[in-house]
Amino acid sequence: MLHENLSVNEMGHLCIAGKDTVDLAKKYGTPLMVMDENRVRRNMRIYKDAMKKHFGEKSYPLFASKSFSCKYIYRLAKDENIGIDLVSSGELYTALSTGFDVSKAFLHGNNKTDFDINYAMESGVGYFVVDNLTELDRIDEMAGEKGIIQKVILRLTPGIDPHTHAAIVTGRVDSKFGIAIETGQADEAVSYTLKKKNVRLCGFHCHIGSQIFDIKPFCDASEIMIKYISHIKEKFDYAIEILNLGGGFGVKYIDSQPELDYEEFIRLISVYIHNEVKRAGIDMPTVVMEPGRSLVADSTLTLYTVGGTKEIPGFKNYVSVDGGMPDNPRYALYQSDYTVCLASKMNEKADFECTVAGRCCESGDLLQENVLIPRPVRGDILSVLVTGAYNYSMASNYNRIPRPCVVGIANEEDFVVIKRETLEDLVKNDI
Amino acid sequence: MLHENLSVNEMGHLCIAGKDTVDLAKKYGTPLMVMDENRVRRNMRIYKDAMKKHFGEKSYPLFASKSFSCKYIYRLAKDENIGIDLVSSGELYTALSTGFDVSKAFLHGNNKTDFDINYAMESGVGYFVVDNLTELDRIDEMAGEKGIIQKVILRLTPGIDPHTHAAIVTGRVDSKFGIAIETGQADEAVSYTLKKKNVRLCGFHCHIGSQIFDIKPFCDASEIMIKYISHIKEKFDYAIEILNLGGGFGVKYIDSQPELDYEEFIRLISVYIHNEVKRAGIDMPTVVMEPGRSLVADSTLTLYTVGGTKEIPGFKNYVSVDGGMPDNPRYALYQSDYTVCLASKMNEKADFECTVAGRCCESGDLLQENVLIPRPVRGDILSVLVTGAYNYSMASNYNRIPRPCVVGIANEEDFVVIKRETLEDLVKNDI
Repeated sequence: MLHENLSVNEMGHLCIAGKDTVDLAKKYGTPLMVMDENRVRRNMRIYKDAMKKHFGEKSYPLFASKSFSCKYIYRLAKDENIGIDLVSSGELYTALSTGFDVSKAFLHGNNKTDFDINYAMESGVGYFVVDNLTELDRIDEMAGEKGIIQKVILRLTPGIDPHTHAAIVTGRVDSKFGIAIETGQADEAVSYTLKKKNVRLCGFHCHIGSQIFDIKPFCDASEIMIKYISHIKEKFDYAIEILNLGGGFGVKYIDSQPELDYEEFIRLISVYIHNEVKRAGIDMPTVVMEPGRSLVADSTLTLYTVGGTKEIPGFKNYVSVDGGMPDNPRYALYQSDYTVCLASKMNEKADFECTVAGRCCESGDLLQENVLIPRPVRGDILSVLVTGAYNYSMASNYNRIPRPCVVGIANEEDFVVIKRETLEDLVKNDI
Repeated sequence: MLHENLSVNEMGHLCIAGKDTVDLAKKYGTPLMVMDENRVRRNMRIYKDAMKKHFGEKSYPLFASKSFSCKYIYRLAKDENIGIDLVSSGELYTALSTGFDVSKAFLHGNNKTDFDINYAMESGVGYFVVDNLTELDRIDEMAGEKGIIQKVILRLTPGIDPHTHAAIVTGRVDSKFGIAIETGQADEAVSYTLKKKNVRLCGFHCHIGSQIFDIKPFCDASEIMIKYISHIKEKFDYAIEILNLGGGFGVKYIDSQPELDYEEFIRLISVYIHNEVKRAGIDMPTVVMEPGRSLVADSTLTLYTVGGTKEIPGFKNYVSVDGGMPDNPRYALYQSDYTVCLASKMNEKADFECTVAGRCCESGDLLQENVLIPRPVRGDILSVLVTGAYNYSMASNYNRIPRPCVVGIANEEDFVVIKRETLEDLVKNDI
C-alpha cells in the first residue's frame, strides 16, 4: 500500500486507520473525505521533534493553513503545540474560533488588505510576513494608530530555482512574492524597515516552491539566507532573530515517488545552517518552517461512488464518479498525480485501464487518466488517495455541487469534522 | 470600449450600464461583480427571436446553468420565457426555489446519481439528457417505480473537432460525454432505448465545444445530426422530435476577438438544417440550443481594489488585487484571455506593463499577464471585464477567502443579487 495507514480487510475493502472505507461511504454518503488524525499528529511530531533536535529548542513548525484550513486542524495544531501560518482574515477567523493562540501565527500574503491588517493586529497575530514596501507602509501606519510595535518578517526571494536550481536566471527573482536579494531590493527593504517606528524587523522568510523531493535547493536556500543574515549584521549592525524557511517538502502521491524522511531532510539543512552560522560568526537564529502539504496530504483519502463506465472501442474507457473538480481541482489545474483504487474490490485484478471522470459538465473535469483498476460497476466505491492537502481548501460549488463531508478517525472512532453542504447552503446568499 | 454597455464618465471612471464602477466599489466593497441585467435580457432575446425566426415557432434557447447558476438568473430566464439546462440537484434546487417551470428544463450530466434522478423526476424535469446506457437503465427503473414515462434525449458525439474539425480521428469520439455515432454505439443506444418501457426517446443532443468563433463546425454538426435523425427514421421507423445543438458560440473577451452576430450564426445553421431536412424528406424537428457563456459573460465585470505594485528591475511588474483565483480560476485553469483596465483612471495613459496577481498564497494565482494599464497605486480600482460566465459559478474559498458580492443593474438602479460571503459563512460547516 502507498502509506502505512492503508490496508485491505477480509472483505477486500480498502481501510484507512483500520476503518473499512466502504462502511464509511455507506454511513456518511459520498463524496466523502476521510482523515486519519493519528497520521496528522505523527507528521506534526516528526517536524516538531526534528526541528528542536537539529535547529535548537526555540525552533518549531508552522502549519501552512492554506493546505487545509478548518477548525479541526487548528485544534490538532494547538494540541500538538505547533504554530500556524495564515494568509487571510478567513483563516485567522477560523483559527481564533478554536481559541488558537495567534501570537504563534505568521500572517502571509502578497496583498494584505486594510481589513486584514487591522483584524490581525486587533487579534494579536505574532508576526506579519511583509511581502512588499507598500504594505509595510500600511502596517507601520496602522500600528502607529494603535500605538503598538508590530513584529515583522521580510519575505525574500533567494534566487533558487527548485527544479533546475541556480540555472536559469530569469525566473529566479521573478515572482509575485517577496523581495529579491540579488537586485539589491532586499537591502533597500531592510534599510527602509529599520527606519520605521512602529514595526520591529524580526526575521526573514523564503519559500522556494512546493512538492520538492531534492534536498539540495533547500540547503542552498538556507545557506543563502544565513549569508544574507550575516550580511545584514555587517551592513546594518542588526541581528536577525528568526529565519523562516517556508515549506515545500514533497509528499508521495504515487508509487514511483519516494516517501521522504523529513527528519533526515531537516538534519541535512541544519548542517548547512550550523556551518554557515559558525563561519559567519553570528548567533544561531530561531528557525521556523511552514509545512502544509506534508502534514496533512497523506492523512486523507476521498471516496466516491461510481456512476458507470463508458467504453469507446479503439479509444478509451471512462469511469464516472459522483465528485470531481469541485472537490479536487488539482488534476484540472496541474495534472497532478494521484493513486486511484477501487475501494470496494481491492482484491480483484486491476486490469481495466480507464480515465476517472468527475460529474461536472466540463471535459476537463477528470481526476486521473490511464489508471488500472478492476472493472467497476455502478455503486462501487472508488478512492483517490492522498487528498488531505489543497483538496477541500480549493473546493468549489461548480455545477452547484455541495462540498463533501470530511470525517476524522481517531482512537478507532469516526466522527464528522466538516459537515456536508446542503442544497439550502448553496442558495444561502442568493437574493 | 470592448462592449457597448461600457463607457467612461467625466471623472475618468469606468461605467457599466451607465453606473460609475468606482462608486459601486465604494458602496458594496471589493471584490465585486456587477451584472448588467439589460445585457442578459438582450442576449436572451437575440437567441429566442432568431431561433423562432429561423428554426420555427417551437424552437427556443435553454440557459446553460453551469455558466452562472443563482436565483436571479432563473428569474430572468423565466421572465424572458426561455428554458434552462441543469447538471445537478443543486442547480435544480436553485431553479425550483424561484418557481421556475422545470417542464422546460433539460437535465444533463455524465453521472446522474440516484438522488439526482429521483429529485428531478419528483420535480417534473421535462427532459433527461441521457449520457450512457448505465444511467438509462436506472432512469427507466426509477420511472417504472414511479409509474411515469420519462422523456429522454440521447447525447451523441457527432465526431466534430471544433478546432481542426473533421481532421484528427482520435479525439473525435473520445469524450467523457455522450455516445459515438461513428462507432455504431449510437444505433445500439437508440435500439436499446426504444425497447425500454418507462422512457420515451424524444431527441438527440450534441455539443461540439466552447468559445468557438467559426460557424463551420456548427453547420457540420447540424448536418450530421439531421442525417442521423433521418437514418433513425429509416432504420427504426421512429421520428425524432427534438434536436438539441448544445452551446459553444464564442464571446469577445479581448479586442482581437470578433463580436459574433448570433442571429446570423443561427440563420446559417438553419440553412444547413432546412436543406438537409428537405433532402431527407423528414419533419423539421424542434431545435433547442444551450447558450450559457454567450448569454451572461459580457453582461458582467469584476472590480478589485489594488493592494500595491511590485517592480522587479529587468524582469516584470506585478499588480496585486484583493481577489484572484478564488473568484476567477479561469486564468489558472486555462490561461483564459481577459481585458483588464484601471477603472478609477480610465483616461490616464496605459503604459505600465504588468501581470495582475491575485491575493492567494499560490504562484499560479494570476488574473492576466502582460497587460497595459496606467501605473496603479494602493486603493485604485481595477476591473477585469467579461466575467459573467464561469467565474462566480467556479468560485472557491481557497485561502478561506469569502466569495464576492454580485450586484445587478437594471433601470438605472443597482441592487444585490448574491450577498457577499461572511467570515461566519466560511466556518458554518466546521465542527
